Amino acid sequence: MLFRQLFEPETSTYTYLLGCERTRRACLIDPVASEVPAYIDLLASLNLKLVYTMETHVHADHITGAGRLREALGSKSVVHRDAGAMCADLLVTHGVPLQIGDLDFEVRHTPGHTAGCVSYVMSDRVFTGDALLIGGSGRSDFQQGNAGQLYDSITGQLFTLAPDTLVYPGHDYQGNTVSTIKQEMAKNPRIGQGRSREEFIAIMAELKLAYPRFIDQALPANQSCGMTEAGA
Amino acid sequence: MLFRQLFEPETSTYTYLLGCERTRRACLIDPVASEVPAYIDLLASLNLKLVYTMETHVHADHITGAGRLREALGSKSVVHRDAGAMCADLLVTHGVPLQIGDLDFEVRHTPGHTAGCVSYVMSDRVFTGDALLIGGSGRSDFQQGNAGQLYDSITGQLFTLAPDTLVYPGHDYQGNTVSTIKQEMAKNPRIGQGRSREEFIAIMAELKLAYPRFIDQALPANQSCGMTEAGA
Repeated sequence: MLFRQLFEPETSTYTYLLGCERTRRACLIDPVASEVPAYIDLLASLNLKLVYTMETHVHADHITGAGRLREALGSKSVVHRDAGAMCADLLVTHGVPLQIGDLDFEVRHTPGHTAGCVSYVMSDRVFTGDALLIGGSGRSDFQQGNAGQLYDSITGQLFTLAPDTLVYPGHDYQGNTVSTIKQEMAKNPRIGQGRSREEFIAIMAELKLAYPRFIDQALPANQSCGMTEAGA
Repeated sequence: MLFRQLFEPETSTYTYLLGCERTRRACLIDPVASEVPAYIDLLASLNLKLVYTMETHVHADHITGAGRLREALGSKSVVHRDAGAMCADLLVTHGVPLQIGDLDFEVRHTPGHTAGCVSYVMSDRVFTGDALLIGGSGRSDFQQGNAGQLYDSITGQLFTLAPDTLVYPGHDYQGNTVSTIKQEMAKNPRIGQGRSREEFIAIMAELKLAYPRFIDQALPANQSCGMTEAGA
């Protein structure tokens, strides 16, 4: 498998490129609009054909590159049915398997940061979007966020994966790139260390986070796969 | 590839089993509820794992086996986003590629019989559901049917396939099993032989078909993947 973890510094977003060496088919998880030319170059240099762009959710902090990549490369956009992105080509739900060449993904519905959040599970790794972050979690105070639901998603759908499963998050603000399920269960200060649902809800209620910087542009743009003026 | 064309005589429905010999993954196109036990036996005897059940549309004449197969085997149900079957697991749109082991499918939106009709295209064959039938076409007088749209779907999305592409329809009432695009373009009395859009619309308007026998049970059942009392 070809694998690249790509960092967009303005919004601290991780995008992931996964490619099948045998079939040369590839996907991008959470591509960012401003980086589309770089993705196109990278795919060409690796001789990969982009089949799907896969969103973990409708983002509030950056604009998706899904629409531009669809225009440029004919890739199809994957998102959860409840995400409210009716521009998407393939609407998925919990438990659906997706195959790209020899790469196998299973969709797990992990709402709580938003109603339509999913994690993409592979045999040795999981892409958690803004549900589980390294030493943290996505916020749950807008976009149908719900701290109790987020606790249930992380503990029920992610902490039940094999302990050595690699955790690749949608963001990191401290330079971390990867963790494991075992490590997050042991160390994550918000939801690891055996925290109860009530403790997690109380922690999330106390965060007092600022209003997201880009939400007023990003949300409407992402509902149309990044193809509004802000995205294109 | 393992391939079986299965006939359900009460509603003259064709169901298709396609299996990848390398990965043992399989799909069923348009499974019928009453035949589910036979599908389960057949899959087991061929040592195949059912990944997807793929509907060409929400049927008015028989009840889908998708829900029962999901319960029994964990398969996921695929249908077009506009079909109105919100019970489905994977909602597809025009142009989406789907992969099952080494089998590649492309979704083509072919509305006109219903709004959410699709055809599933492979490299050498197409599953046309009730859009193009052998020597005929699906009716267009209910379920958002539209004869002009059906003409555009068949001529724009199916007659543009390679001439030798095998045509596997959703039904046949005269014992035909398979045709080709070339043959339907040459011989189909409704839409082949260079028929114009206006001629086709006039032919469809003159059919005076009876009200479908099973529609009042089948439609609501199929909107819930066959899991109402009529289907289960």
